[in-house]
Amino acid sequence: MSELAPFPSSEYERRVDRTRERMREAGLDALWVTDPANMNYLTGYESWSFYVHQGVLVTHDHDPVWVGREMDAKSAEATTYLDDDHVRSYTDDYVQSPHDKHPMDYVADVVADVGYDDRSLGVEMDAYYYTARAHQRLTDQLPAADVSDATLLVNWVRLHKSDAEIEYMRDAAALAETGMQAAVDTIGEGVRESDAAAAIYGGLIGGTDEFGGQYPAIVPLMPSGDYTGTPHLSWSDREFAAGDPVIVELAGCRHRYHCPMARTLSVGEPSDEMADVAEVVRIGLQDALDAVEPGVTAEEVEGVWSESIAQHGVEKDSRLGYATGVGYPPDWGEHTVSLRPGDDTVLEEGMTFHMIPGIWYDEFGVEISETFRVTGDGAETLADFDRDLFVV
Amino acid sequence: MSELAPFPSSEYERRVDRTRERMREAGLDALWVTDPANMNYLTGYESWSFYVHQGVLVTHDHDPVWVGREMDAKSAEATTYLDDDHVRSYTDDYVQSPHDKHPMDYVADVVADVGYDDRSLGVEMDAYYYTARAHQRLTDQLPAADVSDATLLVNWVRLHKSDAEIEYMRDAAALAETGMQAAVDTIGEGVRESDAAAAIYGGLIGGTDEFGGQYPAIVPLMPSGDYTGTPHLSWSDREFAAGDPVIVELAGCRHRYHCPMARTLSVGEPSDEMADVAEVVRIGLQDALDAVEPGVTAEEVEGVWSESIAQHGVEKDSRLGYATGVGYPPDWGEHTVSLRPGDDTVLEEGMTFHMIPGIWYDEFGVEISETFRVTGDGAETLADFDRDLFVV
Repeated sequence: MSELAPFPSSEYERRVDRTRERMREAGLDALWVTDPANMNYLTGYESWSFYVHQGVLVTHDHDPVWVGREMDAKSAEATTYLDDDHVRSYTDDYVQSPHDKHPMDYVADVVADVGYDDRSLGVEMDAYYYTARAHQRLTDQLPAADVSDATLLVNWVRLHKSDAEIEYMRDAAALAETGMQAAVDTIGEGVRESDAAAAIYGGLIGGTDEFGGQYPAIVPLMPSGDYTGTPHLSWSDREFAAGDPVIVELAGCRHRYHCPMARTLSVGEPSDEMADVAEVVRIGLQDALDAVEPGVTAEEVEGVWSESIAQHGVEKDSRLGYATGVGYPPDWGEHTVSLRPGDDTVLEEGMTFHMIPGIWYDEFGVEISETFRVTGDGAETLADFDRDLFVV
Repeated sequence: MSELAPFPSSEYERRVDRTRERMREAGLDALWVTDPANMNYLTGYESWSFYVHQGVLVTHDHDPVWVGREMDAKSAEATTYLDDDHVRSYTDDYVQSPHDKHPMDYVADVVADVGYDDRSLGVEMDAYYYTARAHQRLTDQLPAADVSDATLLVNWVRLHKSDAEIEYMRDAAALAETGMQAAVDTIGEGVRESDAAAAIYGGLIGGTDEFGGQYPAIVPLMPSGDYTGTPHLSWSDREFAAGDPVIVELAGCRHRYHCPMARTLSVGEPSDEMADVAEVVRIGLQDALDAVEPGVTAEEVEGVWSESIAQHGVEKDSRLGYATGVGYPPDWGEHTVSLRPGDDTVLEEGMTFHMIPGIWYDEFGVEISETFRVTGDGAETLADFDRDLFVV
C-alpha cells in the first residue's frame, strides 16, 4: 500500500486517468500492461520479477489490478498504491512449467473475473517480456474478447514529465556525474577494464551523501581500443593501453528514473584526427541543443546536428537521440519519440530526451551526450559535466 | 571472427551440431534463436543489444547466420566464431520505427535469402525478447513456411556442461565469493543499503587479481528488515537497523557463465526463531545436496528437502532450484529442469543447478543456497563460502 512508492497516490491516479483517456480514444475497454516501466509508472510496482509473466490490468471503472507470481505479490503490496484486493497472484507451479500450465491462463481468468472477457482489450504486442506464446495463450483463453495492439500507449503518456519526475531525473543526473567522474578518475594505462567498471558502479550506486543510486536499465557500456566502433560492448579484463580511445556510456538511476550520459576518453594523447572529431561532436551537440524549443519537431533538431557536422565533412545515419525516463532492463529509452529524420513529433515543455551524437570510424569512435528537458526557454541539460575529450 | 570469443570454434560447432540433432528430432529445417543466452551459447555473440530485435538462424547445411542491427554487426564480427558473410544487419530506420517497418521484415528476407521460406522453421515462442508482434510479423512475411514452437530447444542442449564451461563457472564462483564477502564485510547498523550494494558490485566486478567479473543477469537482490519476505527487491537508501534480517542473493559472472549464491545475515543478534529457521534451511540444504547423484530425478531431490524441513514442522511450496549457466538479463536460470514436484528429469553428470532453499515468514525470511554440478560422486558445490547465518 504505497509505503515504498516514490510518489503520492494522486500522482499514480492522474497517470492512470491519462492512460484511460488514450484508451477511450483507441476504443479500449481494458488494457493489459506488461512493460515493467509502464507497470512501475502506473502503479509504483518495483521488483526484479519481470523474468516471469506479470502485468497490470487497467480498466475504466476499477483501480488497476496487478497480476503476477505469488512470491511477488508482497512486493506489489509494498510498492504500489493499490490496495491488497487489487493484487492477484498465481502459484509457483505456473512458473516455467513443462506441463500445460501457463501464467497467462491465470491472467485470462482475472480478466474474466473482473468482467472484461467479452470486451475490447489492448495488449502491448511489441513490449519486452510480452512473448509470442503469452499472447497466444491469452487470446486462446479469451475467445470472446476483441484483442488489439496497444504497444506504446502508456509510453506516450510517459513522454511529458511532471515537476516531481524531473526532480528524480535531476537526482539521477547527480548519480551520472558521480559515475562518470569515477570513470575519468580510474581509467588509465594498465588499469583493467573490469576494475574501471567496478569503480563506475561505486559512483552510480554509492552515489552522494544525500542518496544512493539504483541499478540502471543498461549496464555501463565502455568499448575501448579497437572496439569503440562496437558501441554496445561492456567490459573485459583487458588492460587499457596507451593510445586507447574509450567511450563510456552510463546512466544514473533514482526511483527508476534515468539520466543517461556518454563521454569519450583517450588514454594518453589522442590522435589529431580523434581530437578533431571530438570537436565536431561537441559543436554539433551544442548546435542541436540550441535548436530545441517547444514547437520544433524531433527531425528538425536532428537536421541541425546533421548540418553542423556536414560542415566538417562528416555524415552519420543513426538516431541522434530518444525520449528517456523510467526504465528497466534492457532499455532506458521510452521508444516513442526519436530525434531522427521522419519523426515529426512536435517538442513540448516537460519532454525529456537523451541526445547522444556519436561518430564511429574503424579506428575510434566519439560519443558525447546530454540528457535534457524541453522548457519554454529551450533545452535544459540535467547534468553538469565537462564535455571535453578527457585525456587520462 | 572469434577474437573475443571465450571458446575455440570447435566448441561452438559441437553445440550447433547438438542443436541440429534436436532440430532433426523435432522435424525442423531451420531454427530462429532469439534468447540472448542461446545466441551466445551457439555463436559466442556478446553485446548489450537484446533491446532491439536480433537472432541467430540455424540450419542444417550452412553455418548459423547472425541477424541484427547494423550498429551491432561489428560486435557480431568481433565476438562470434562466424565469418563476416554470416553476419547480416538491418539499418537504423528499422529500430523502434513508428512507420510500417519492423526488424522482423528484414529477418524474413534473410530466411528467404538462404532458401528456407518454404520450410519448417522453429521459433522460441516463450523466450525473452521474442515479442508477440515479432512473431506476427515473421509469420506474416513467411506465408509458405511451417512455423512451430521450439521454445527451450537450445536450452536443453545447454543443460550438460563441458569441462571448459565448468571452469568458467568455477571462476564465477570465485566472483560470487568475493561479492558475498563484501556484503558480509559492509552490511551493518547505520549502513545505507545502496552503499552495501555498491560494495557488492565492487566484489563481483572488481573480482580477483586473476580476473574481474561481468555483469550478472540479475542485480544483487537484498531484501531486508520488514521486506525479507519479498525476495525480488533490490536496495534502497534505507539504513540497516539493529535486528534487521538481510537476505543477499547474487551471482558471479564470467564469460556469461553464472554461479548464483544466497546467504542470510542478521544485523545484531537474530531472534531465536530466525536462528532456528536458518538451521532448518542449512540442514535441509545439506540433505538435499547429499541426495544428488546421477540417476535420481529432480523431484526426488526436492522431496528430500521437503521431508527434511517437515521434520521441523516447516512447509514450502516454491521451487527448490533450477538449472543455471549462461545468462543475460533478466534471468540466470536456464528454464529447463526445476527441482520441484512433477519434474521427473533424471539428473546426469555435467548438469549444473542453483539449489536455493528459502523459507519466508511475515517477519523474516532465510535463504541459503549452493550452485552445484552433478558428478559421478554426487553434488560438487562450486563455491566455498560458509553457510552460517551471519551476525553483522
